[in-house]
Amino acid sequence: MSLLVVGTVAFDKISTPFGSSDKIVGGAATYISLAASQFTKDINLVSVIGDDFPADYLDGLKKRSVNLDGLQIKEGEKSFFWEGKYRYDMNSRDTLDTQLNVLADFDPVLPENYKDCDFLMLGNLAPSVQLSVINQLNQRPKLVVLDTMNFWMDIALDELKEVISKVDVLTINDEEARQLSGEYSLVKGARKILEMGPKYLVIKKGENGALLMDRDNMFYAPALPLEDVMDPTGAGDTFAGGFMGYLANSRDVSFENMKRAVIVGSALASFSVEKFGTERLLTLTEEEIDFRIQLFVDLVDFDILLVD
Amino acid sequence: MSLLVVGTVAFDKISTPFGSSDKIVGGAATYISLAASQFTKDINLVSVIGDDFPADYLDGLKKRSVNLDGLQIKEGEKSFFWEGKYRYDMNSRDTLDTQLNVLADFDPVLPENYKDCDFLMLGNLAPSVQLSVINQLNQRPKLVVLDTMNFWMDIALDELKEVISKVDVLTINDEEARQLSGEYSLVKGARKILEMGPKYLVIKKGENGALLMDRDNMFYAPALPLEDVMDPTGAGDTFAGGFMGYLANSRDVSFENMKRAVIVGSALASFSVEKFGTERLLTLTEEEIDFRIQLFVDLVDFDILLVD
Repeated sequence: MSLLVVGTVAFDKISTPFGSSDKIVGGAATYISLAASQFTKDINLVSVIGDDFPADYLDGLKKRSVNLDGLQIKEGEKSFFWEGKYRYDMNSRDTLDTQLNVLADFDPVLPENYKDCDFLMLGNLAPSVQLSVINQLNQRPKLVVLDTMNFWMDIALDELKEVISKVDVLTINDEEARQLSGEYSLVKGARKILEMGPKYLVIKKGENGALLMDRDNMFYAPALPLEDVMDPTGAGDTFAGGFMGYLANSRDVSFENMKRAVIVGSALASFSVEKFGTERLLTLTEEEIDFRIQLFVDLVDFDILLVD
Repeated sequence: MSLLVVGTVAFDKISTPFGSSDKIVGGAATYISLAASQFTKDINLVSVIGDDFPADYLDGLKKRSVNLDGLQIKEGEKSFFWEGKYRYDMNSRDTLDTQLNVLADFDPVLPENYKDCDFLMLGNLAPSVQLSVINQLNQRPKLVVLDTMNFWMDIALDELKEVISKVDVLTINDEEARQLSGEYSLVKGARKILEMGPKYLVIKKGENGALLMDRDNMFYAPALPLEDVMDPTGAGDTFAGGFMGYLANSRDVSFENMKRAVIVGSALASFSVEKFGTERLLTLTEEEIDFRIQLFVDLVDFDILLVD
């Protein structure tokens, strides 16, 4: 099943309490595609870069069967750049520099062969750009997943709500779920958000795991406690890519299968944060993924004997 | 198996974003005993109160088979009082008033019939008081569990480390684990803390669940997402009481059984926070507990089919 991925392809410069990176390749669509490519070989990417982007990195994506026909390359312009510094708790970060560059007037144009995608992953971008992609499709995909963030809730809530009304799955973090719903309780908040359109809500909690909810069910996926967390950048995108890649490959969008997809996404994200940028994702093997998924199985395994 | 509980029996006045309480009964030993009494009927309590404490509340504890021979009642003095206000995120709180009163010179004296306890639960108190209790025992209990907090790490670290060296299980929250170990990674931090003496470490994460670790194993218990969280006060103590009561009843201190005890403790805590103070614990039935434990089972249940 074909997967269409929309999002940034960009440069990041990152420092954390445990180290810092040079200007390295990042961007939501990069992480999503790399993670999804572990499970499906039919990925179409839509994004925009300048002429400053390393050709060998693009070749690497192509070798992983990521189709770049929809990647606009703007001659004489620069790629999107973000510089940030994580605080000690690794859950909060300060933006030191943002250069929109080619992203400032990004107008996504879907190649004809993208317009009948089965699965659509809308990475974090302006809601207007996400809407434009949806509107260019020939038919509604089997599953549309939307990732967004508080920034768009602050400055483009109406457009964001329009996008939310058109998707099947929304992925946001717990603070964003509280902001979007106006409810402190994630149970109440989820109910309100599910009334906005999506059938499923994934609440990402970073080192505290992720919650999958629909109107009738809840599933709590733990995060794997790790020896080393070097760089949380892209963890949410990697999660989304693993989640979506697994679903696209298995062609099953039931709640039961989404639970598995959440575990797979969490496993992929646990690798991503172990090194800076996409480095760890580029060397990841199927055996490593399977071994790590088994760690997630073991991590929550218990059998309870009720006392009477 | 007999359970000895040491900790405060006190008054709290609490406000949260969702309401506020009058001066109500609280204290670590109160929550621990109430939670443990769901599973074991052989509980001995050591604490101190003034003559201002409601007799009917003490009668309620006795009716739950909590032995109060070790509860000192100081005539003409007042019970420990704490007033606090939770912030919107419910994870942080500001202390508005602390009146140590009888706690200022608390010198625990164990009745003879307490000195051969099988299980010892050291609730959060000055490490010197906790040490004094340990030193009065005739023999080492089958299991000693210690709860403490960052306050004692700040002002009495050496004494605290002495207590830690004498216990089997330490329960602290994630920030405290990071402070005590000096490690950001909870995996590395746990390893360091386990070298200080305990065989097991429980890292409490509030609404994000709890981690149980020994040198070779990790277990992640989720917290149940709740419709309403009214008052987090005593959640950690309730967890400890459920954990300890379950272990004392089942007489099995293996890692496998501790996983069950963590789930039971988490289930009890999920009730406690639904109302102010100990109100919810006082009406709790076995059927409600069993039903909720089943929710925890369902919450993390998945079967993964690895992709090949």
